[in-house]
Amino acid sequence: MKAFMDKDFLLDTETAKKLYHEHAEKMPIIDYHCHLQPKEIYEDKKFRNLAEVWLGAGDRYGDHYKWRALRARGYEEDSISGPDDDYKKFYQFAESMPYFVGNPLYHWSHLEMKRYFGIEEIINAKTAKTVWEKANAVLETLTARKMMEKMRVQVVCTTDDPVDSLEWHKKMKEDATLKVKVLPTFRPDKAVNIENAGFAQYVNQLAKVVNKPIVCLNDLLLALNERIEFFNEMGTRLSDHSLEVVHYAPATYEQANAVFEKGLKGEEITDLDQDIYKGYLLVALGEEYAKRNWVLQLHIGALRNNSKSMLAKIGADTGFDGIGDDVFMQKLSAILGALDEKNALPKTILYNLNIRDNYALTVLAGCFQKEGVKGRVQVGTAWWFLDQQDGMRQNMETLMQVGVISNSVGMLTDSRSFLAYPRHEYYRRILCSTLGRLVESGQYPESELETLGQIVENICYNNAKEYFGF
Amino acid sequence: MKAFMDKDFLLDTETAKKLYHEHAEKMPIIDYHCHLQPKEIYEDKKFRNLAEVWLGAGDRYGDHYKWRALRARGYEEDSISGPDDDYKKFYQFAESMPYFVGNPLYHWSHLEMKRYFGIEEIINAKTAKTVWEKANAVLETLTARKMMEKMRVQVVCTTDDPVDSLEWHKKMKEDATLKVKVLPTFRPDKAVNIENAGFAQYVNQLAKVVNKPIVCLNDLLLALNERIEFFNEMGTRLSDHSLEVVHYAPATYEQANAVFEKGLKGEEITDLDQDIYKGYLLVALGEEYAKRNWVLQLHIGALRNNSKSMLAKIGADTGFDGIGDDVFMQKLSAILGALDEKNALPKTILYNLNIRDNYALTVLAGCFQKEGVKGRVQVGTAWWFLDQQDGMRQNMETLMQVGVISNSVGMLTDSRSFLAYPRHEYYRRILCSTLGRLVESGQYPESELETLGQIVENICYNNAKEYFGF
Amino acid sequence: MKAFMDKDFLLDTETAKKLYHEHAEKMPIIDYHCHLQPKEIYEDKKFRNLAEVWLGAGDRYGDHYKWRALRARGYEEDSISGPDDDYKKFYQFAESMPYFVGNPLYHWSHLEMKRYFGIEEIINAKTAKTVWEKANAVLETLTARKMMEKMRVQVVCTTDDPVDSLEWHKKMKEDATLKVKVLPTFRPDKAVNIENAGFAQYVNQLAKVVNKPIVCLNDLLLALNERIEFFNEMGTRLSDHSLEVVHYAPATYEQANAVFEKGLKGEEITDLDQDIYKGYLLVALGEEYAKRNWVLQLHIGALRNNSKSMLAKIGADTGFDGIGDDVFMQKLSAILGALDEKNALPKTILYNLNIRDNYALTVLAGCFQKEGVKGRVQVGTAWWFLDQQDGMRQNMETLMQVGVISNSVGMLTDSRSFLAYPRHEYYRRILCSTLGRLVESGQYPESELETLGQIVENICYNNAKEYFGF
Repeated sequence: MKAFMDKDFLLDTETAKKLYHEHAEKMPIIDYHCHLQPKEIYEDKKFRNLAEVWLGAGDRYGDHYKWRALRARGYEEDSISGPDDDYKKFYQFAESMPYFVGNPLYHWSHLEMKRYFGIEEIINAKTAKTVWEKANAVLETLTARKMMEKMRVQVVCTTDDPVDSLEWHKKMKEDATLKVKVLPTFRPDKAVNIENAGFAQYVNQLAKVVNKPIVCLNDLLLALNERIEFFNEMGTRLSDHSLEVVHYAPATYEQANAVFEKGLKGEEITDLDQDIYKGYLLVALGEEYAKRNWVLQLHIGALRNNSKSMLAKIGADTGFDGIGDDVFMQKLSAILGALDEKNALPKTILYNLNIRDNYALTVLAGCFQKEGVKGRVQVGTAWWFLDQQDGMRQNMETLMQVGVISNSVGMLTDSRSFLAYPRHEYYRRILCSTLGRLVESGQYPESELETLGQIVENICYNNAKEYFGF
Repeated sequence: MKAFMDKDFLLDTETAKKLYHEHAEKMPIIDYHCHLQPKEIYEDKKFRNLAEVWLGAGDRYGDHYKWRALRARGYEEDSISGPDDDYKKFYQFAESMPYFVGNPLYHWSHLEMKRYFGIEEIINAKTAKTVWEKANAVLETLTARKMMEKMRVQVVCTTDDPVDSLEWHKKMKEDATLKVKVLPTFRPDKAVNIENAGFAQYVNQLAKVVNKPIVCLNDLLLALNERIEFFNEMGTRLSDHSLEVVHYAPATYEQANAVFEKGLKGEEITDLDQDIYKGYLLVALGEEYAKRNWVLQLHIGALRNNSKSMLAKIGADTGFDGIGDDVFMQKLSAILGALDEKNALPKTILYNLNIRDNYALTVLAGCFQKEGVKGRVQVGTAWWFLDQQDGMRQNMETLMQVGVISNSVGMLTDSRSFLAYPRHEYYRRILCSTLGRLVESGQYPESELETLGQIVENICYNNAKEYFGF
Repeated sequence: MKAFMDKDFLLDTETAKKLYHEHAEKMPIIDYHCHLQPKEIYEDKKFRNLAEVWLGAGDRYGDHYKWRALRARGYEEDSISGPDDDYKKFYQFAESMPYFVGNPLYHWSHLEMKRYFGIEEIINAKTAKTVWEKANAVLETLTARKMMEKMRVQVVCTTDDPVDSLEWHKKMKEDATLKVKVLPTFRPDKAVNIENAGFAQYVNQLAKVVNKPIVCLNDLLLALNERIEFFNEMGTRLSDHSLEVVHYAPATYEQANAVFEKGLKGEEITDLDQDIYKGYLLVALGEEYAKRNWVLQLHIGALRNNSKSMLAKIGADTGFDGIGDDVFMQKLSAILGALDEKNALPKTILYNLNIRDNYALTVLAGCFQKEGVKGRVQVGTAWWFLDQQDGMRQNMETLMQVGVISNSVGMLTDSRSFLAYPRHEYYRRILCSTLGRLVESGQYPESELETLGQIVENICYNNAKEYFGF
């Protein structure tokens, strides 16, 4: 029997151990996509206790993975996202831990206790009090920035709206004590999602920010370009679009502008309208990203806000999102193809939320490569609900079989939490396990181990550094 | 080499053996969804030979798994579902057995011979005669009820139409000699499937049963509620809907009633009509189920009666059904959401027939939990074509990774056969194998083995008992 | 650690070794679907160097698997499909080899070097020169036919257009020195794809070939039947249709003919038009295939020519195709059902390109079996992007769980290359590994090993011989 989560956790062959301990482990972290709050980094946030930093008690965004698991266990919402006592919230989570057998929370939680707090206890009802006290003692001195430093985080890309003043990013730029490079990411979903109630209001807000009226689509594009340029000056290397549904139809400016005007007036937007407007806008923005050598990220297929009653009660992004099952490959191909034909396809990372699309997406990415770039279009690391062992192993298997895994830019946290960095370790261990199995089963020669170690280091760090240009 | 199907069959670690032999094995069986005939249970049916009880020879429904496999081998239909000699039918199956390598039939068949008949022979052409004679000798005394007792079946839920008089269930209720609790399940598909030729006739039949005219949708709902109440008095704890296609559109009573009237007149029912009527009806029925704390089962995605020529020749449910590949997640979310918004979402088990929907469905279920209930909405055990080792392992893996497997209400047979109970054993062995691997690979601590044993017992028995309220 | 790609490559149990070395290894090869050029076989093509035969340098079709991988590595197109130096092309591929870890190219390439050239070197930058020289020396004498003989290829079915004169096939028929049976396959895609620009022109070409005018759909069917008869006389046993999208709607001759006339005039063809015309034509052709006891192959779900810029630059089939994600099961069922109802469903092999359809397709195939035929409708071996270890293992697992794998007609190369035959070896090793694991884990009795060996031989060779009637 292998010991529980020791230094060789998930390293199931000697080669895996070698790859991990001699190569993966030492690489710093580039977290090129996350949802950390720039303000919290700048202010070097201190947390009042383990419940706040770990579960999201208080006025902060919570950890929706944990919240979902606790809801499934039948606890009261007040003791999950609500006003109940911090220790009660923590205790419930600790007591539930053994019942999360096989869930990534089990591993993440123990890794987090080990790596940040030096706590080696198995988490359960019996150890809850001890864990709580030990962790809180460490939290006296373990601030946001210290957490990042402890995990050797070199670069972090937050997720920011085009209208954002990036004030915290500015302050961070001027803060010589900040040891991690924190860069904004351009995420213009609100300018894209023309069917939403707040669209016209958002366009107004953008108009105010650029101090120019926006009455036609060209105005909008100019305003967005101005913000792109501003983000670029602030160090942005990535943009990010959430395509819950992939929309695209070939369209002229006039057609797209007609839809835009309907959107401004708050008129009903049809499905075809969305195809026209969103397709046009994405291609236009993609050209701008390409000019600046930015990377475009497409997050495809979330099915959001399934429980309307909970949306009304506690808002979005609180654990009620799901996975869509739409057909989208043709339209996605058309979007990439349209940019490609203009010679304006940026480096692009495709993330699918439905694991059943792994193969088709990875193969599609392979159709849009470019001279001089390793993996110009590539499928990202397993995303959100797929960011766990089964999801990652399937993601890696598919990358290996129909892609070129050695090109991969590797892991990101996509997280709101400063405690999420051990997911990089989790990913690296699974990567080394996967590659190690190939060697030990006679599928890759031991004589190439040096190159394989280099490949591991590249996937963990070097590829991202080069691809994004950090 | 591991011995063939010995007491440690599928138990591939020491922990798996411990979990199975100390925990899973001893639990009685709750078979909360099956298609046994109440009459056969009440009358304690005796079988004339192994062909009748095992393959479905004679005038009984056959075993479509076996029939499909035999057809693929090219045998004549007369010797599968037709008038040919019983021994010939059995012999063909026995001689084919080695050619079913890797198919669940191989394991099910051997388990069934072992557990019911004490037959340890490898089934093939050479042993056919011996197996036939030994089994038939045992069948002299092994009746329907004795089979259930032998397998320690405590509760069985049959599948019944709202117009059913439940006469056999009544008799069983009054039969003190019956050791298994047999309860009806409410399956109103015929009232839902308005597009079918027999719809108006079925509504008439229902009207006669409740002795009230049904001329509008409200009449139908009242009639169904009357039957729900009757089923409830008879002990029903579950309803069951087959959603071959998931239909839903938000609709008023007037809209739904307009479709209902078209259905009564036998007019053509469009796809949108079905969205309106079926969605409305499912939500209305769901509210009634919730009131009575029933569990709603949704069986999603069968593609039935693919061979029209065989449908004409030998009827439905004889082995010509398939797996659909429709997009349905949005509509399913809307159905659950509509009930949730009315605070009337019953406990619900979602079953998908297309394995590619495992992830999306399990995540969707997690969006509709409830205070005080463990796993209010959950994905059921691998269904029908997926009820085999690969299907179950993938089902469990997904439950672990994005759900909370410890909440699972576990296995059911969904079977027409009294010989199907070893599928519970099969499931339990795979469950223990899956959990044992986690422990032995250092992914779950050995020190939590007691809790893990409890989790196994819960999944095998306790969760179902509590969830359904048996 | 298992040695790298030795004689027991992928054979991970003793049983696997026995099954492979005592049964699989000795069977000759039937390659019932490939894209070899008949001319090259007849002329017994000699290759100028390893780049030409292996990568496709020069004026020959290239190896799109290798080209895609090289593009992902960022090499210049000129050095992949273009005019650059042969050795440069080869060197780039060799130097990239270690970076293709986990990709089938890694295994295929090493197998090919071993089996055809006796080269045991690990391919990489350091060995590139040696490999190049050794292989080129062997190529002095290793011609197209000798490659086939070396791999013990008995039958090869090429892929041919109805208008093809089959001149090379004729010559081969009369060539007593040719040791492999080379047969044409009837692939009438150009007559089916009415929406394409060249449709009317193609119909004209066909009219010329049969020397009769084609002005209505009946004319077309008569012309195609004439070609079918000609192909039949030339030994054809299979037809092949690429269904990028599965089209079908029930239609009368008049409806289908109306669409045909639109197509002849170059008018716009709607989606429904395609359903009508293509469905009608496929059923009509299927009847003809059935009459001649041909096997119908359906290749489902390619998403072709994703990069329009590369299509314009270097043409189709050069590595820019992808995997579609359409919903198609109902229409496919309707096509098979329509033929089945006429008692005119030929033996049929279904190939899916999207791995997520494995289960639904395998189950659908099981709905259309026939007395006297083993596996009348069956799912083919993992196709194209799925033709690798993960794809094959999933294909086999699904065949085992919901099909009858012992009926399988096994492997084909689908390749344009004479060096692709080791893929049969690759498949056989994976098959033996899969079956061996069942035996050694107690899931299939060792006492049936003789039968299992026979099953392996059948899948590798005998089933195909019987099914196709070679």
